Amino acid sequence: MSGEFELIRRWFAPGTGGARRFVPGERGVVLGIGDDAALLELPEGHELVAATDTIVAGVHFPSDCPPRAIGHRALAVNLSDLAAMGAEPRWALLALTLPDEDPRWLDEFAAGFHALSGRIDCVLVGGDTTRGPLSITVTALGSVPRGSALRRAGARVGDAVCVSGSLGDAAAGLALFEGRYSTRATGVHPLLLRFELPEPRLALGRALRGIATACIDVSDGLLADLGHVLEASGVGATVEVDAVPISVPMELAIPAADHRELALAGGDDYELAFTCAPDAVDDLRARAVELGVQVTRIGTIEAAPGLRCRDREGGAVAPHRLGYEHFRSS
Amino acid sequence: MSGEFELIRRWFAPGTGGARRFVPGERGVVLGIGDDAALLELPEGHELVAATDTIVAGVHFPSDCPPRAIGHRALAVNLSDLAAMGAEPRWALLALTLPDEDPRWLDEFAAGFHALSGRIDCVLVGGDTTRGPLSITVTALGSVPRGSALRRAGARVGDAVCVSGSLGDAAAGLALFEGRYSTRATGVHPLLLRFELPEPRLALGRALRGIATACIDVSDGLLADLGHVLEASGVGATVEVDAVPISVPMELAIPAADHRELALAGGDDYELAFTCAPDAVDDLRARAVELGVQVTRIGTIEAAPGLRCRDREGGAVAPHRLGYEHFRSS
Repeated sequence: MSGEFELIRRWFAPGTGGARRFVPGERGVVLGIGDDAALLELPEGHELVAATDTIVAGVHFPSDCPPRAIGHRALAVNLSDLAAMGAEPRWALLALTLPDEDPRWLDEFAAGFHALSGRIDCVLVGGDTTRGPLSITVTALGSVPRGSALRRAGARVGDAVCVSGSLGDAAAGLALFEGRYSTRATGVHPLLLRFELPEPRLALGRALRGIATACIDVSDGLLADLGHVLEASGVGATVEVDAVPISVPMELAIPAADHRELALAGGDDYELAFTCAPDAVDDLRARAVELGVQVTRIGTIEAAPGLRCRDREGGAVAPHRLGYEHFRSS
Repeated sequence: MSGEFELIRRWFAPGTGGARRFVPGERGVVLGIGDDAALLELPEGHELVAATDTIVAGVHFPSDCPPRAIGHRALAVNLSDLAAMGAEPRWALLALTLPDEDPRWLDEFAAGFHALSGRIDCVLVGGDTTRGPLSITVTALGSVPRGSALRRAGARVGDAVCVSGSLGDAAAGLALFEGRYSTRATGVHPLLLRFELPEPRLALGRALRGIATACIDVSDGLLADLGHVLEASGVGATVEVDAVPISVPMELAIPAADHRELALAGGDDYELAFTCAPDAVDDLRARAVELGVQVTRIGTIEAAPGLRCRDREGGAVAPHRLGYEHFRSS
C-alpha cells in the first residue's frame, strides 16, 4: 500500500478524486490540507457552527452499500446537522479509517464525497487516514449570522409543528436494499436513492432563520427527534399522524400497512422538523416551493408535556416504537 | 445498555465524568453539547484553527492500554497539531465508537479526556457515540491572531533546526509497555508516562509565534516529520544526530545502542520541531525554560534538498528507518 500522504494527494487534495480546485482564500480557507491544521477565516458578525458524526459499516449503512453512497452519506449527515441550525456549511474535515487501500473503492467514495461538497461549496480542509475497521467521521464547520441560529429549545405553546419533504422513504429504501420488500414495484428506485443519497435541507434551514422557533433534523425517526425538541423546549405536542407526508414512491412500492410506522419511526430521512407561529406556515410553504421542497404542518405544540399521536378520526394512536437509538436497552 | 443521550449525559456533558462545569458564554461557547451542532464565538481578529485525528485500538495504542491514557491521548494528539500552529485550543468535538458500554471503562476514559481538556481550558462542545470497534476521533478547534500561525512552509537557508524536550521517550515507553525491554531498570516509569500521557507543547507553540519560520509536531518520528517541513519549505537540512536530546530516563532504562534510532525515528513524542533564525535560539531557550521545556538546536537548514544526518566526528549517518507511516508499502 502507498503512504498516507499519497492517499490524500491522490483522492482528497483539491483538484483530485473529483474534488473542486479552489483558489487560496476562497471560502475563507487561509490554509487547507497539508499542514498540521487548517487555518480558516470566519465571516465577520458570524458564529461558528460545528458538528461531528461517525458512520460505521454494518451500523449506519449495510457493509455492501455502494462506496459512492458512503462518501455522500458521511458528509450529508453532518450537513444535515448544520441545516437544522440554519447554518451555511463552509468547511469539512474527514477522518477515514479503512481496512485496506482499495483504489476502486476510494475512487467511488471520493466521488460521492466531493460531488456533494463541491455542489454546496463546502471545502475539505483537513483530515486523517487510518488503518482499521471501516468507519468515517466527518466534522462539518459552517457559519450563521450572530444570534440567528435555530435551536431545539424555543418551541412555544400554540406553535405549528411542521416537517419538510416526505418521511419514511429512507427507512423504506433501506428495507428494499436489504430485501425486506419486493423490489419489482414502481417507486422502488426513488426510495433506494433517498436511502443512498440523503439530501440535507440546507436552503430550507437558512430560510427558516427568524421564522422557526425550534428545529431539528430527522435522523433517528420523526417521533424520537421531535421528542428532543419538546424536551429542550419544555413543552408537549399532538401530531396528526395522517397529516405526516408520505411520498408517491412509498405509496407505490410499500404495503400501506407499513406506511405509518416507517414515517413516524424510520430514520435517515434527514428532513427538518420545526415549529413556528401558525400564521407563518402559509408564507413558509410558498417559500419552500421556490426552494424545491414541500413543507407540511403535522401538529401543534401544547403545554402538557409528552408527545401525543392522533389519527384523522381524533383517536389516540400508540406508535409502535419511538425510533432508533444506537445503544439500545435490548 | 442505556441510550446515547444517557451516555453523553453521564460522562461527557459539562460537570459530568470529571468535565469542568462552565458557564454559558465562557470560552465563546454560545451553545454546547445537546443540540444539532455547537455554536461558537471566535475572538475578533483571529483565525480558526482546526485539526482532526483518529486513534484506533491496536494501531495507535495497544488494546490493553489504560482507558485513562486513551482518553488523554485522543485529545492530546489533536492539541499537539494546534500547538504546532501556535494556536490556542478552545473547543473539542469527540466521536467515540465503542464495542459496548462499560461504565468502568467510560469512567476512566472520560477522566483522562476531561483532566486534559479542563487543564488547558478546551471545552467539549459536541460529539457522537456509536457502536463499533473501538476508535476515537477528536476534532480540536482553536484560534490564532490573524496572520500569526506557524506553518510547515517557511524554513529559510541558514535557519537553525530546533526541537523541544527530549526525543524517543514515547517509543521507548511503548517498547517497555510491550515488554521489549526489561522493566526493572530505573527510568522505566517516566518513559511509560511519556507514552501514556503525551503532553502537547501548547505554551511553547504560542511562544514561537513571530519567531519560528516553520514548525511541526513530532508524531511520526523526527526525521519523517522534519522531512515534511523541508518539502513544504523547498529546502534541505543537516541534522547533528548526537545533538538530538535524549532524556535521563532513556539513558538509564534503554540500551545505548538503541538511543539514536528511537530518537530519530520513534513516534508519539509530540514535541515540536521548528526552524528559526540562528541568533534567535538563545533567547528562545531562555523563554522555553520559563515554560518548563527545553529547546535544543539540532541542525541547520541548507539549500540542497534532502535530509542529511551527521555524527559528532562529521561522518554521514544513514538512519535505519525514517519513521512510521500508517499505510506502509511493506
